[in-house]
Amino acid sequence: MKFFEDIEVGERFEVGRHFFTADEIKAFAQRFDPQAFHLDEAAAERSHFGALVASGWHTAVVWMRLMVDFRRRMEEAARTRGEPVAGIGPALGFRDLKWLKPVYVDDTIDYASEIVDKRVSGSRPERGLLTIRSTGVNQNGELVLSFISTTFVERRPDRS
Amino acid sequence: MKFFEDIEVGERFEVGRHFFTADEIKAFAQRFDPQAFHLDEAAAERSHFGALVASGWHTAVVWMRLMVDFRRRMEEAARTRGEPVAGIGPALGFRDLKWLKPVYVDDTIDYASEIVDKRVSGSRPERGLLTIRSTGVNQNGELVLSFISTTFVERRPDRS
Repeated sequence: MKFFEDIEVGERFEVGRHFFTADEIKAFAQRFDPQAFHLDEAAAERSHFGALVASGWHTAVVWMRLMVDFRRRMEEAARTRGEPVAGIGPALGFRDLKWLKPVYVDDTIDYASEIVDKRVSGSRPERGLLTIRSTGVNQNGELVLSFISTTFVERRPDRS
Repeated sequence: MKFFEDIEVGERFEVGRHFFTADEIKAFAQRFDPQAFHLDEAAAERSHFGALVASGWHTAVVWMRLMVDFRRRMEEAARTRGEPVAGIGPALGFRDLKWLKPVYVDDTIDYASEIVDKRVSGSRPERGLLTIRSTGVNQNGELVLSFISTTFVERRPDRS
């Protein structure tokens, strides 16, 4: 991650893309969200969804995985350029997580995150606080997921 | 689930309890949140957490799993009594999810959910909307997780 001072409000990152297979949807649901419309095609057809859909929690944790991978690629690129890498975290939580459309079998979701606010931390002056809006959009351009997260990021050691 | 008309604001449910082992914390993190402080004891000791901690997403999806199991038990009990069972869902999302304390290896988390608001749905008059505050508390009585979710629930067919 870049240091707090080098991050601009409005910066947007294409975090990654994920293809939701039936097998993966069912495997996640079996473990964490065993409702019939996430597990069984016939039951899902009779539900308000009309077909098998991914657990909303599944669509959210896939963002987390892609974000960790994205940050790792950015950090490796920075190290290759000989630049220092800022520490990030911990995350404090989320607000306004919305499941706006179902994610069906074989949907492809593109995840993006945008810096919407930044401020110096009162409790931890060596860190800044970033507010990030993240979204998932399906192959038809429909917004399926949206949420706002807040996380600490390291400030430049030479900022003074 | 009970029907919308039979649910009272202030009702509280002990949803379930979960014991977080090191193996399970690492398995979740490997798949969805592969950050060093969720995967490796030595790296976690050097982190701001001081020891291996569960992914915040892991502590949230465990609530979902326990809630599905809890609802299933309630529904089976209702059917045994010969009572009808109300349909629930879809969930619309959540707000104000806060990771207040880390969840460490061998922590036991008690999850509870409380109805904090209910209203008839404008868009779907056959359903009501429930606002639910859910929490996780560790074995020392410390609040580790808190969030507010909103979900549809079926209204009584004989309500008119």
